Amino acid sequence: MSKVRVHISTSLDGYVAGPNQSMEEPLGEGGERLHDWLVALKAWREQAGMEGGEENSSGPVVRETHANVGAEIMGRGKFGPPSRGAWGDDPWRGWWGEDPPFHKPVFVLTHHEREPLTLTDTTFTFVTDGIEAALAQAREAAGDKDVFIGGGADVINQYLAAGLVDELELHVVPILLGGGARLFEGVGPDLKLKELRALEAPGVAHLKYRVAK
Amino acid sequence: MSKVRVHISTSLDGYVAGPNQSMEEPLGEGGERLHDWLVALKAWREQAGMEGGEENSSGPVVRETHANVGAEIMGRGKFGPPSRGAWGDDPWRGWWGEDPPFHKPVFVLTHHEREPLTLTDTTFTFVTDGIEAALAQAREAAGDKDVFIGGGADVINQYLAAGLVDELELHVVPILLGGGARLFEGVGPDLKLKELRALEAPGVAHLKYRVAK
Repeated sequence: MSKVRVHISTSLDGYVAGPNQSMEEPLGEGGERLHDWLVALKAWREQAGMEGGEENSSGPVVRETHANVGAEIMGRGKFGPPSRGAWGDDPWRGWWGEDPPFHKPVFVLTHHEREPLTLTDTTFTFVTDGIEAALAQAREAAGDKDVFIGGGADVINQYLAAGLVDELELHVVPILLGGGARLFEGVGPDLKLKELRALEAPGVAHLKYRVAK
Repeated sequence: MSKVRVHISTSLDGYVAGPNQSMEEPLGEGGERLHDWLVALKAWREQAGMEGGEENSSGPVVRETHANVGAEIMGRGKFGPPSRGAWGDDPWRGWWGEDPPFHKPVFVLTHHEREPLTLTDTTFTFVTDGIEAALAQAREAAGDKDVFIGGGADVINQYLAAGLVDELELHVVPILLGGGARLFEGVGPDLKLKELRALEAPGVAHLKYRVAK
């Protein structure tokens, strides 16, 4: 059966975004540094349709995270805009321009109904009836491929707490953010994990876990 | 010059002790599980004067943490008892019986004055004038060896925030504690780290950092 997978960059103090997320700083103060290790990579640049970039021990990890994913679920916080609330007459179309880098069905958890939005080969479907409904739709869309929970922290924490995640990989970046969106908040000791892998790479450590059922 | 070193076992959600620390559960609810990976090791048992135990990739890490340490600093929370407060007429002598496993000078940060306590080859000196004074005494006692900051979280966080730590190693255990004593609380983005090593081992991942000055 297809898996539900999470992978996300986190600061050493456990934040996946810094404080005060805004239009200017979608990942909060200092949060962009969470992706310094990633955007330098050839493996990331080729996925984004760009040339060049470094090859290092993070390359295979990043390619693995992209492989076999059939659908993504994200929260309203990741889709944006930071002001949230009702969509309005000229609704926000995401952070990613007219050719978003997903190339697969994306399900956006929101409290505000909206018709699907298709931009090139990415269709954003807005789901208002909760995380289990979104997962059922994403599984259907993914077929025998996996479903990726793309964040932010709040959505990941909800799926973890509900026991709906199969694999979790943290890209641990050697910075402290001191505040912001914290992974594992409200999850607690009922979540049982098995360590699958710990891997050193330039500017990041990759820690991968399977969730015990 | 000798270094100031921290190494500590932490849950994946960033706690070095669980909630509700007590006489029965000195590391709080679920906190003993932070040391499951450690107490099984030959490297730990030989340090504690016991025979047997496993050899695995954690062994060299544990031996390295014990090597070249000339003095330890700990908080009143680690020394105990959990009730804290004044020492009283029959003062607490630590958790470790009449032959504590330190075998070196230990400096205990406390708000309550007390004469030094010697148990076999470990002398506990009680320091009431703050972290810098304790570090000066510990450096003096350690000579050209290193000073180890032994915890708990509160003491480690104070030394990190003050920029007084040179090396930090986290033994990341694949459990969630959901609450308790949190590492890095109040430290924040001014602390600059460089990743030295990430190492996979059974039931734990070892992440080692140098603090940039």
